[in-house]
Amino acid sequence: MIKVSILGSGNVATHLYRAFAESNEVQLVQIYGRNPKKLIPFGDDVSTCSRLEDLKEADVFLLAIKDDAIEEFIQKIKSSNAIIAHTSGSIPLSQSAQKNGVFYPLQTFSKDTPVDFKSIPLCLEASDKEIYSVLEKLALAISPKVFSISSPQRKSLHLSAVFVCNFVNHLYHIGEDLCAKNEVPFEILHALITETARKASLHSPKTVQTGPALRNDQQSIAKHLELLTNENYTEIYKLLTQSIQATYGTKL
Amino acid sequence: MIKVSILGSGNVATHLYRAFAESNEVQLVQIYGRNPKKLIPFGDDVSTCSRLEDLKEADVFLLAIKDDAIEEFIQKIKSSNAIIAHTSGSIPLSQSAQKNGVFYPLQTFSKDTPVDFKSIPLCLEASDKEIYSVLEKLALAISPKVFSISSPQRKSLHLSAVFVCNFVNHLYHIGEDLCAKNEVPFEILHALITETARKASLHSPKTVQTGPALRNDQQSIAKHLELLTNENYTEIYKLLTQSIQATYGTKL
Repeated sequence: MIKVSILGSGNVATHLYRAFAESNEVQLVQIYGRNPKKLIPFGDDVSTCSRLEDLKEADVFLLAIKDDAIEEFIQKIKSSNAIIAHTSGSIPLSQSAQKNGVFYPLQTFSKDTPVDFKSIPLCLEASDKEIYSVLEKLALAISPKVFSISSPQRKSLHLSAVFVCNFVNHLYHIGEDLCAKNEVPFEILHALITETARKASLHSPKTVQTGPALRNDQQSIAKHLELLTNENYTEIYKLLTQSIQATYGTKL
Repeated sequence: MIKVSILGSGNVATHLYRAFAESNEVQLVQIYGRNPKKLIPFGDDVSTCSRLEDLKEADVFLLAIKDDAIEEFIQKIKSSNAIIAHTSGSIPLSQSAQKNGVFYPLQTFSKDTPVDFKSIPLCLEASDKEIYSVLEKLALAISPKVFSISSPQRKSLHLSAVFVCNFVNHLYHIGEDLCAKNEVPFEILHALITETARKASLHSPKTVQTGPALRNDQQSIAKHLELLTNENYTEIYKLLTQSIQATYGTKL
């Protein structure tokens, strides 16, 4: 049994708590949250605390807190004998504690949407092999998708995630907005959105690109630009069209 | 039984053929394709022809051909008594034939990837109610998702589809490219891509936006811009960040 405490009470902390609670290989020692009110949803199934001094011993302290608070927290608890692993995509492995680690679940979490941890990739890093093997055991207790990822690799993964998740969601919103303006139910686009995402897991996205930009269909492109009235949307349309054509060497 | 002939032998024609072939309410009369070689994959289960003069009578001629050939084709076959319906998202309802219609399946089709037509929205338009009701019956034979969509609505749907499918796929490609440059398997992003798409069908994308742009996390944004070496990617990052911030009125 690996003894784990989670420091944090937000989305990532909540989802990690639920996943660990279901595993027989993990013993949840404590949830720490500065604000006691935010600890109420965790109920009586796990011990909670609101002062770092009250942290009990554990094998791993998982920091599921804001990026800019991570190093400050590590300074406060670094005397502990536990592995101190943060869960951030963009912060490098710390050098401050005795045993440093990273336990980064690459997924977009909303508090109210349940997630199946078994499908979530866990990106691990550690300051030595022994620490890595503890984190690996902990990760495998909740997901079979465990990857050894260095700090520079994780940085680039985090950047890629902005493109394939945050920016993609903004394009969904633009589609939704254009539908609303023309009184078309956005629901009509759901199947297309799902299928486009499904294809990305089956094939290299580069090989399945379609659309007017790729075909250099100037007539459709001109019609689309005529329809767009939001200046940002027009700029996005032009820039992504240009980037697609640059990628595939389409003749302009 | 509605008698249908498909004019065209590409992706859309192939998928429509397969869907109709499975329905008991549709009788496939013919597949027309100018190039006889392209008709070979349809096998012996359906009659084929390569000359418009050889088209037999049918209730509906479905044109699954390139956008810029549609009106020319309608001119050639307009004397027919059949409903002539095209399958394009961007071409308005024709006024040329006796009975004009549109039968637009909103999906991205690849020849080798089977699709489940039951999940595909069919956007219909017709020059009168009687014609609409025939097209509706035909559509319901292969999908429960049937929508009455006017030509201007369809135009805006087609534009929205470029954002949520073509442009989204290009962002997937950028993610893939960034992963490759840093020797990270793109597979790690599959779960995130699927979940982001799934969320868009459950919630309004506007309400589930996340990421550094929304949080106005200048530190992460600066780090990401430092990592990007491709000029197009840098411009896309900046523009989409700006558009997200404009959408949510994030203080800059």
